[in-house]
Order: sequence, then structure tokens, then C-alpha cells
Amino acid sequence: MTTLDDLPIRDDLRGKKPYGAPQKPVRVALNVNENTHPVPETVAQDIVDRVAQAVRTVNRYPDREFTVLREKLAAYLGHGITREQIWAANGSNEVLQQFMQAFGGPGRTVLGFPPTYSMHSIIAEGTGTHWVTAPRDADFELSPETVERGIRATKPDIVFLCSPNNPTGTPVSLDTIEAAYSAFDGMLLVDEAYAEFAPTGSPTALTLLEGRPRLAVSRTLSKAFAFAGARVGYLAADPAVTDALRLVRLPYHLSALTQAAAGAALDHADLMLAMVDDIKAQRDRIVAELPKLGYRPYRSWSNFVLFGGVADPHDVFLRLLADDILIRDLGIPGHLRVSAGTEAETTAFLEALARIEA
Amino acid sequence: MTTLDDLPIRDDLRGKKPYGAPQKPVRVALNVNENTHPVPETVAQDIVDRVAQAVRTVNRYPDREFTVLREKLAAYLGHGITREQIWAANGSNEVLQQFMQAFGGPGRTVLGFPPTYSMHSIIAEGTGTHWVTAPRDADFELSPETVERGIRATKPDIVFLCSPNNPTGTPVSLDTIEAAYSAFDGMLLVDEAYAEFAPTGSPTALTLLEGRPRLAVSRTLSKAFAFAGARVGYLAADPAVTDALRLVRLPYHLSALTQAAAGAALDHADLMLAMVDDIKAQRDRIVAELPKLGYRPYRSWSNFVLFGGVADPHDVFLRLLADDILIRDLGIPGHLRVSAGTEAETTAFLEALARIEA
Repeated sequence: MTTLDDLPIRDDLRGKKPYGAPQKPVRVALNVNENTHPVPETVAQDIVDRVAQAVRTVNRYPDREFTVLREKLAAYLGHGITREQIWAANGSNEVLQQFMQAFGGPGRTVLGFPPTYSMHSIIAEGTGTHWVTAPRDADFELSPETVERGIRATKPDIVFLCSPNNPTGTPVSLDTIEAAYSAFDGMLLVDEAYAEFAPTGSPTALTLLEGRPRLAVSRTLSKAFAFAGARVGYLAADPAVTDALRLVRLPYHLSALTQAAAGAALDHADLMLAMVDDIKAQRDRIVAELPKLGYRPYRSWSNFVLFGGVADPHDVFLRLLADDILIRDLGIPGHLRVSAGTEAETTAFLEALARIEA
Repeated sequence: MTTLDDLPIRDDLRGKKPYGAPQKPVRVALNVNENTHPVPETVAQDIVDRVAQAVRTVNRYPDREFTVLREKLAAYLGHGITREQIWAANGSNEVLQQFMQAFGGPGRTVLGFPPTYSMHSIIAEGTGTHWVTAPRDADFELSPETVERGIRATKPDIVFLCSPNNPTGTPVSLDTIEAAYSAFDGMLLVDEAYAEFAPTGSPTALTLLEGRPRLAVSRTLSKAFAFAGARVGYLAADPAVTDALRLVRLPYHLSALTQAAAGAALDHADLMLAMVDDIKAQRDRIVAELPKLGYRPYRSWSNFVLFGGVADPHDVFLRLLADDILIRDLGIPGHLRVSAGTEAETTAFLEALARIEA
């Protein structure tokens, strides 16, 4: 039998294993920060109607510029953002890949502050961009001074800030983002995949776009919009940035069905986002309850909670799994991460965790 | 206003323009080799039902391994091909990009035989793979000796053969493919995007997969399945090749809606492919009629025809456009390309072309 080692794969891929959170069918899946609430039925019906229209012309290539979708995304974001500032792709992973293809690549570096979203370094490697890192402050926070120090030390071409940060849940202040932008001449990307779970009225990097052409803010419909299965990520930036992404995107990368489904979901933003308040309440409940069980949760503006004080993370992970509850062991010593689910799912997690400690 | 030149884009992208066939709404669009027949209504209904089911769980990430879809694609291809040999992505462009990310990249080269599918060289550049070329025989044919000579002269890491070739329509014989495979130690990809339009019973490179782990054969649902808008491309190869692609693919790259829609289309392969015979008849009609108008068509096993003998291609292109008929001027001196449409569309094209010569 032929194996991977028998094939002339790229040298830097030798010995690697594919990314993968385990795909196990379990009763309570709180491992990949999905929105555990299904799309409301009235919205689902509208999505299906819109897709049904698109199927009738699916023999033709889709609108390569996904114009209607970009308009809807701009309107949803607000802050005076226009269609020309919007770019979208199959999940924010693809948006970030296109961003690194345009501004990174061989001979260039991207700086991140681990622990952070694991795909950032994987996408960097996939595009030949060298991934460099700098330390965070205590409790995974990120002050302006710490970011400036990291940039001065590594002189990157691109800086990635994840706010709120995955897997820690911790937000990055606008002061820190402004400091990063001013500290170098490269491209700054703020990954706001979980922005909708921040406290109401919280600042977003979108408010910093005006006058900062080297700043991009990425978002996704996967989380707040309960659309992980539909694969729609996007970013807002200066129109020149979206022009750069046009140079590297594969033509017609966003299918007519995706454009139709996402458009329908955005038309119901109010209904789709109604679930967010429930999830935030469960997240706050986890943060409040974990200390009573002897764990140390970090402050979270996202739909998940990282907590320390776990003597044997893998053991706790396995014991929860025996209870048909799947959370995430990210390999951070003494830590585990759990997504906030429905009230029932959160209760199941907290009760099972309490039993383990008992 | 900020422009692309003001941004720190990758040096090799400076001055480039995005790929783009014009997106003009016209009465008769025969420019991008679409299948101009809509999906049959009974199939469309089934696709919508299947998508409707998927929407109900779209809050969850899709099956990262798209297992059901791979099974259906393997069954459709036949030739004893199994699920483990199948890979799919958002259009064959993405399949080819992943192939070059895994087996190409900086310091490696991919050999093509122009004129060929323009995205091959663009995807090569996008992945940092050096694109090298070798000449064809007369009438854009490709003999075993010519391919061997090209490989010996360029010593590539990857060879791309497009059969039937876009934009010429000319097939590549199995002898030539076997000769290419034996002529080097690298990866050979045969792009069979238009394979279903070949004469019934024609050979396919799929029959060569057994015992050739460095061979991959790519296909698409865009053309024969009238699914360009849904963006589904795929390949068949040794299971080790699909393992290599898992190392570079973005996780969850294929949406739940795409998987559902493509699965439904494949369940109706007989109905979907019924249109192919109509299109082949119109293609043969174009090949038969063009000489009567003084043009020289090449033999075509695809759903389009390249023809020479055009004194001023851009002028003919514009005159047809004035008649609301869009074909393709690929910049090959003296040549134009036209897709075979419905009988009415083909008639409109031929009559308009006859008027131009009159």
C-alpha cells in the first residue's frame, strides 16, 4: 500500500497530521464553540426559499463579486461601512488564507500572541508565511506595551490579533489595537469571530477602520448567526485591501447557494442574534460556577470559557466524555475550554464536572 | 484614496489584475463553457429538500470528511474507485490549489502545455509553484513523444494535462498520459473537467489509476451536471494522495449545504447527464457548420469549440456582443472559442456569425 511518505509531498509537510477536533457523535458537544441553538424555523424556511431560487440558475456561475451579499454584510456591520469595504469567503479561515496569500507568503512573517486560534499558524504555514510569536501578559491579557514590544522584537509583515481571543476568551482593547497599528508598517488583522458575544455596547475594531488602510477586521456567520455548517466568513477593510484579495481568490469561490443562504440569514439578523443573549447568560453562569468547583475561569467576551486549575486536563476530558459530554483539551497545561451551550447543555456540563470533583 | 500600490502586498502581485471573464448580462452567454440547461425540475426539488434538511443543523460544523458525498462520487465514477480515493472542494480550482499546496510550492515547478486552462498557471503562482511550459504538436494535439520531450526539458515536480483540453477541446490519449507518468517521478494531474462530453465509450484516465499512486484525475460537477453555481470539484487518486490533501485543506472547507446539494444531484446522475447528449449534438453542429462560414474548428471532446481562421477576433467578438451574444476571445491570434448551448442559442450564434461574414 502506498503511504503519504511514498509521495513527493512538500518537504515541510512531511510527518504532519491533519488538523482535527474529534468528530464524535455525543449527547452534549461543547468542543468547537458552535452555536448549539438551531436556526429559528421561520428563518430556516426563508433560507430554503432563497436557496430554491438559486438552484434554478445553478447551471450558471455565481456572481463572482457576491454583490448582494456584500451589501447585506455592510448593512449588518453598520459604522458607515460600505459594500466596497467587504470581502467574504468559505469560512473566515479562507478569508485569512487569502489575506496571507496577498500580504504574506515566502520571505514574510506574521506575528501572533499564543495561545490563540490554532488555525492562524496553520494557515500561515500553508501559505509559506513564517509564523512568529510574542508573549502575552498575565491571565492571557494583551496591553498596548506588550503588543508594541512583540512587534519591535519580531518586525513582522503582518500582525494577527484575535479579539475576543480564542481559546482564552479575553478581549483586546482598542488602545492595544491602535498601538499595534502604529508600531509597524505592515498589515494588521483583528479576528473578531466572536465579537457578538461581547458585553452590549463594547467597542469593536470596526470603529478604527476610518483612516487606517492597513487594518482589516474579520468576522464570521458561524458563531453568533449559528451558521457554522454554511461556511461564511468575511472581513471589513479599506477597499484597496479587498482589491488585493481579488488578486489571490479563486474565481467564483463563493457558491450561489452560499450567497443565497447567507443573504437570507442576514435579512433576519434580529432573530438570529436573539440566541446570543441566551448564550451569553450561560457563559456568565459557567464563569460564576466554576470557581465554586475549584477552577479558575478567565474573563470571557466569547461563547466559551477557558479555565485553569485543572490538575489533570486529559483525565477530566475523558471523564466528561464518559458522560457523553465533549469539551476541548487544547494542550495548555492545567487548562480546559468549554463552549456555552443551551441552558440544559450547560447544566449537564456543570453537574458532570461537579461529580468528577466530588 | 488608498490604492493597491499603497499597501504592502506581496511583491509578485504588484501590477497584477484579478482574473475575470466579463460578467455581462446578455441574451446568449456562450463565454465560460457553462451548461446552459437548467437543472431538471424534479432534481431541483430534491436538491431543495435535501438542503432544507441540512439547514436544520447548519449551526453545527459540517462533516469535515464529507463521507456521504465521497461515497456518491465514487459510485458515480465507477471503475472500482472507492470512497478513500475521492477528494472534493469548492470547485475544481480549489482541488487544484490544494494539490499544488501539497505537492508544489516554493522551489517546485509545475509543467503545463499551453494553450490550456488559464487557471492552472494562476493557481500555480498563487501557491508559489513555478509554472513552466512546453509546446504542443500541430492542431494543439499532444503525442506521447511531445509530452516526454517536454518533461525531459523542464524536469518538473508536477505535470498538468487537461483532457479534453480547455480552450482547444482536444483530448489527450491514454498513451500520452501513460508516457507522461513514466517519464518522471513527480505527480501527474489529468484535469478531466469536460470528460462527460467525450464520445460515448471514450477512455478516461480513471482507468489508469490502479498501480499509479502519483496519478490524480480531477473532475467537476460544474459542466456535465449543470452545477457551476454550486462549486463542486473533485478528484480520484490513490488514498495516500487524499491524505496529502488533508494536510493543506482548510478544515470544514465544504459546507453542509454544498454536501447536501451535490449528493442530491449525484442521486439523479441519469437525469442530469441526459442534457449532455443535447449539448454534444450542438457541439458537433458547430464543428460541422463553422467550415461553411470559412472558419477552422478543432476536434472537440468538450462542450465548446475553438476555431481558427478569424481575421480579427476582437472585432468578431464585439460584433457578436452587439447582437447580445457573448463568446470568448482568449487572446490566441486568429482564434475564438464558443460554448455549445441549447439548440436555440447555438442557432443564434451561428446565424449571427454568418451575418458578420456576409
